[in-house]
Amino acid sequence: MKNKLKVAIVGSTGYGGVELIRFLQHHPNVEIASVISSSTSGVSIAEGFPHLNTIMEQTLDGIDVAHMAANVDLVFTATPSGVSTQLVPQLIDAGLKVIDLSGDFRLKDGAAYEKWYKHTPAEDQYLEQAVYGLSEVYGEQVQGVDFISNPGCYPTATLLGLIPAIASGMIDPASIIIDAKSGVSGAGRGTSLASHYAEINENFKAYKVNKHQHIPEIEQVLTDIAGHKVTVTFTAQLVPMTRGIMSTMYATLNGNYTDQDFIDAYNQYYEGKPFIRIRQAGSWPATKEVFASNYCDIGFSADSRTGRVTIFAVIDNVVKGAAGQAIQNLNLMMGWEEATGLQFSPVYP
Amino acid sequence: MKNKLKVAIVGSTGYGGVELIRFLQHHPNVEIASVISSSTSGVSIAEGFPHLNTIMEQTLDGIDVAHMAANVDLVFTATPSGVSTQLVPQLIDAGLKVIDLSGDFRLKDGAAYEKWYKHTPAEDQYLEQAVYGLSEVYGEQVQGVDFISNPGCYPTATLLGLIPAIASGMIDPASIIIDAKSGVSGAGRGTSLASHYAEINENFKAYKVNKHQHIPEIEQVLTDIAGHKVTVTFTAQLVPMTRGIMSTMYATLNGNYTDQDFIDAYNQYYEGKPFIRIRQAGSWPATKEVFASNYCDIGFSADSRTGRVTIFAVIDNVVKGAAGQAIQNLNLMMGWEEATGLQFSPVYP
Amino acid sequence: MKNKLKVAIVGSTGYGGVELIRFLQHHPNVEIASVISSSTSGVSIAEGFPHLNTIMEQTLDGIDVAHMAANVDLVFTATPSGVSTQLVPQLIDAGLKVIDLSGDFRLKDGAAYEKWYKHTPAEDQYLEQAVYGLSEVYGEQVQGVDFISNPGCYPTATLLGLIPAIASGMIDPASIIIDAKSGVSGAGRGTSLASHYAEINENFKAYKVNKHQHIPEIEQVLTDIAGHKVTVTFTAQLVPMTRGIMSTMYATLNGNYTDQDFIDAYNQYYEGKPFIRIRQAGSWPATKEVFASNYCDIGFSADSRTGRVTIFAVIDNVVKGAAGQAIQNLNLMMGWEEATGLQFSPVYP
Amino acid sequence: MKNKLKVAIVGSTGYGGVELIRFLQHHPNVEIASVISSSTSGVSIAEGFPHLNTIMEQTLDGIDVAHMAANVDLVFTATPSGVSTQLVPQLIDAGLKVIDLSGDFRLKDGAAYEKWYKHTPAEDQYLEQAVYGLSEVYGEQVQGVDFISNPGCYPTATLLGLIPAIASGMIDPASIIIDAKSGVSGAGRGTSLASHYAEINENFKAYKVNKHQHIPEIEQVLTDIAGHKVTVTFTAQLVPMTRGIMSTMYATLNGNYTDQDFIDAYNQYYEGKPFIRIRQAGSWPATKEVFASNYCDIGFSADSRTGRVTIFAVIDNVVKGAAGQAIQNLNLMMGWEEATGLQFSPVYP
Repeated sequence: MKNKLKVAIVGSTGYGGVELIRFLQHHPNVEIASVISSSTSGVSIAEGFPHLNTIMEQTLDGIDVAHMAANVDLVFTATPSGVSTQLVPQLIDAGLKVIDLSGDFRLKDGAAYEKWYKHTPAEDQYLEQAVYGLSEVYGEQVQGVDFISNPGCYPTATLLGLIPAIASGMIDPASIIIDAKSGVSGAGRGTSLASHYAEINENFKAYKVNKHQHIPEIEQVLTDIAGHKVTVTFTAQLVPMTRGIMSTMYATLNGNYTDQDFIDAYNQYYEGKPFIRIRQAGSWPATKEVFASNYCDIGFSADSRTGRVTIFAVIDNVVKGAAGQAIQNLNLMMGWEEATGLQFSPVYP
Repeated sequence: MKNKLKVAIVGSTGYGGVELIRFLQHHPNVEIASVISSSTSGVSIAEGFPHLNTIMEQTLDGIDVAHMAANVDLVFTATPSGVSTQLVPQLIDAGLKVIDLSGDFRLKDGAAYEKWYKHTPAEDQYLEQAVYGLSEVYGEQVQGVDFISNPGCYPTATLLGLIPAIASGMIDPASIIIDAKSGVSGAGRGTSLASHYAEINENFKAYKVNKHQHIPEIEQVLTDIAGHKVTVTFTAQLVPMTRGIMSTMYATLNGNYTDQDFIDAYNQYYEGKPFIRIRQAGSWPATKEVFASNYCDIGFSADSRTGRVTIFAVIDNVVKGAAGQAIQNLNLMMGWEEATGLQFSPVYP
Repeated sequence: MKNKLKVAIVGSTGYGGVELIRFLQHHPNVEIASVISSSTSGVSIAEGFPHLNTIMEQTLDGIDVAHMAANVDLVFTATPSGVSTQLVPQLIDAGLKVIDLSGDFRLKDGAAYEKWYKHTPAEDQYLEQAVYGLSEVYGEQVQGVDFISNPGCYPTATLLGLIPAIASGMIDPASIIIDAKSGVSGAGRGTSLASHYAEINENFKAYKVNKHQHIPEIEQVLTDIAGHKVTVTFTAQLVPMTRGIMSTMYATLNGNYTDQDFIDAYNQYYEGKPFIRIRQAGSWPATKEVFASNYCDIGFSADSRTGRVTIFAVIDNVVKGAAGQAIQNLNLMMGWEEATGLQFSPVYP
Repeated sequence: MKNKLKVAIVGSTGYGGVELIRFLQHHPNVEIASVISSSTSGVSIAEGFPHLNTIMEQTLDGIDVAHMAANVDLVFTATPSGVSTQLVPQLIDAGLKVIDLSGDFRLKDGAAYEKWYKHTPAEDQYLEQAVYGLSEVYGEQVQGVDFISNPGCYPTATLLGLIPAIASGMIDPASIIIDAKSGVSGAGRGTSLASHYAEINENFKAYKVNKHQHIPEIEQVLTDIAGHKVTVTFTAQLVPMTRGIMSTMYATLNGNYTDQDFIDAYNQYYEGKPFIRIRQAGSWPATKEVFASNYCDIGFSADSRTGRVTIFAVIDNVVKGAAGQAIQNLNLMMGWEEATGLQFSPVYP
């Protein structure tokens, strides 16, 4: 046990925190030294999550930076926006490694953060230090660093679905429209009318249209990939299901490309990446096919009739869109095998 | 319009209140004069319920007894437990007719109310005055009165499913076990972890086991029907759906009765009752078959192998279990045709 | 009764047929003279649909054109594609009025029908005779005719959401992308893995991408409105719910239009139309808000940042997308009040 | 690899078969040598189950006993009732170990099988040879045998919930009533109206009332435990969810027992059993808390008011009710650690 990396999870009673626990328990190189919740410290985590009975019955700790610095090597911060801006700098200054799952360190531009998140941004030095951990794209940059900002759920599906097409020049970045759909767990465990069963069941609806804080995150990365400013139209919509994101993406073709051209380009771009699966022509991914797993499945329909391509990317928002990718980043950061502790089949049906 | 009965609905922004509006809008003898919400008065009801846009855009009023007394003839109180105990006596003293959908006036014994509801009961004179409006059973008592206590959702399905068998002596009242299941709307529009989509979806669970406040209500009526004290075992369980209650009831047979004996006895007991439908032998009701309607469907399986009968009764908890039966009681109270304004087919699928 | 219009419903045991029954039962001018099912004639319709017990227990008839000609005035054909091509001409030749809910008479071009539907088209004279019944747009053309082709579910939501913007010149028709989502009832009552509960629940997926037979229907109408050939990108996707369609539509703005400009233009275009409801700025429709009703709710987000507008239109696919609009067309055809028999509030929650 | 146990899975394209694959892939002592489907041999299993892309892409074999005898050590038969009666004797005669997941070898009495299953039973010698693998109860009998009959899903939850109370004499076996509820995956992947999404969603219904083939299985085991003939009332009901069984059980108390008495008795009975979890007093299990895992959670409400106890037991029907328990039996049979390959946390939410 003494050689394992000791980690703390701040926000253990949120869905992202609980999913970190589910995967990290079986991680051969990691010990969960502390599960932390500012609101419910002092009780067993299994009290609020009885599915953890006999599996994980640690008592929840409060947030104590000095105690973390003395007892753990790395902290996952699965906190709401606006909390990490304050907490993470303290952790870093205390010499701790940090993987932050909030959105607070994704945007390099503090002013953009303030505009889209409506919170005060973190100080620039920390925004600069944070490495954006889209594992399949920025995996090399992540290696050996101490502070990773984990991507958002919508951006993960969207960026993995768009980047090879942009990098290869097959689509016009100015034409991108993203119609995204998410299960309800993406909104977290907090209670509100927007997550009330009777309001969500047998319902499909849009929210934060053209105002979602994941828009600048997507644009920041696409701009980096394209080498010039990219602006996108993005819609977030709620599906009556618990887990899963589908990002349906539309773009104008830069040439007479077929489905197979896309399949070949994506297979090449993602060669050796264990969690990306490209669908055959005429077949498109479904969210259930990645349920509870770290996979991202991608499919295409290039349409010569309209001169556009439709790209579908699906992930489990709690795994590849949060906890799973955070662990994938941990593995990359530490120089471990990328898929360590994550090699589980989707649960089907 | 001047000859219509003017009604107010207190609790218009709850699910029971909104369902009263849905049905009363088409009621030929009723005018909705005031929709009332203590928490959100001053705004249009359609603001919180956009499905009512262009249909019902009245501004929500606050609770004002004098104003009601001056402007309406009857008040529906669709309020949480513990509110009606105070409000309803004022309405009655002001000369208003009242149909109360809370549970505050169902138990004739104030001490029992206090034990099961954990609230202070209403004064005895009002408990005595309230007529328990299980329409098919106490329809005659309801006629012409001024104050009706509308039955609970579980008791409605359960009592309609048990009473003819007890009244006819076909089952042993001492043997009754009730396994009840409800959709989530039964818990109301208030937000809590217990109604959070991600916690309810793909889940089935029990709650308030042997502690549910509908137990004494069921026992009070069965005792009245049997002519001696009846005690029952009752379990409330939550189904991942919005609407619907199934009450599955078990009892020991008092003789060698067949399914057809039950069918005949129930058809006779409920003769002329427009909302009771008895299933043929070998066929049992499903909640979806009464969705959004005021029907109660009942089926049987008398089993000579075990000497027990299993009785299934289904209702829509928001309609027959709340707003629909309240309107049925209004019709009976006023001497109108029992089914007025309620003759809609279930919505299927 | 003798003055009522006598109708037959072919395909009474499909979801569209059953929904026609739900609404027509309360229609003051219509008598359901015959419910017809080629596969299950001879038994009561309530046997397969127990929710109709005591409400509608007619025996199902087989298909018999001469019998219909002798006994009814009008036939609704709610049949699968490829059946109406044969049946409807016989009905028309027998002097019957027809409202066809299949897709067989929507495309004026038989060759296009053959390409997209993979069936042999009906003869041209019948294709020409059929009036496309998008009620709010072609209501005048429908009046007094004998043969109406009822629009598809996706086209209804999509066309109602796009037409005023195209008619007013606010958007570029060449830029239109339609991301559509439907509940499972849209696929009908036939059984297949694609409608298996365990495969659909907790799942979101696309199907028939760029191949859906509703694409040429949408393009045919938009071309008519725009006055020049319009081609669209359209994606059909399945939502884990029973009823409801949301069509999310994207287009490039032809000017510096705001949400309010769209709201004003749509309110003007649809003035006096009882089933169109336009949302206020900053608010978008949800499918549940039109559940079980004939409404179509439309909302906008015009985004100056991207120069595009996002338009949301929702309907209940079984009502406004099928049976409800068919009755609306019946009303228009017969010169009755447009909303007769359809004025029901959505069921919520 | 050469020391691993080579297994074949007959019925690999059913839900039980696919779940065997999910768990066995990570089992350290097992190699999946052949995946078999009589209906779809010759194609990759991932074609029908795209969630297995890159994970398991073996080609499906047909059923060939000689080939199995030559190449594998053990066969899981996850076949429909009536198929194993013929196939399993051939496998056993060929010297193969067998774990049968069909119901064909659970009832020791061939006549009872014929009555409840409506199929011809297997020959008596095979019925006698089969060891009933309720792991926590018959774990010792399973060790070292070659042929195990895996319990049914309802019996597993029900028996685990009842046996300690009967063994300890705390309840009267003559009073047992079982109200059971299951998700839809229990009915398998075959298509029928009974598994159609639009018919199941927002619905709760009973089926096979007093006729379910799991009744004699439950009675056979309870009779064995009690030492005298036990007859039970059992109801199977369908919940609108994919996975999960709750068995709610009622019995008359044989004394003045409290919740804690039951908790103590069960903890003692199941001491050292890794997959049984007993709830604290005042807390009851929910199906979601065992989702996708091999756990069985059990809770109690002993009620002095009625003299009855209500017992709740939940499992994932596809795991503990089928594939998971089959692997647990494999472990016991082979003398491996009981939980090998099964130690995964439930997936929540």
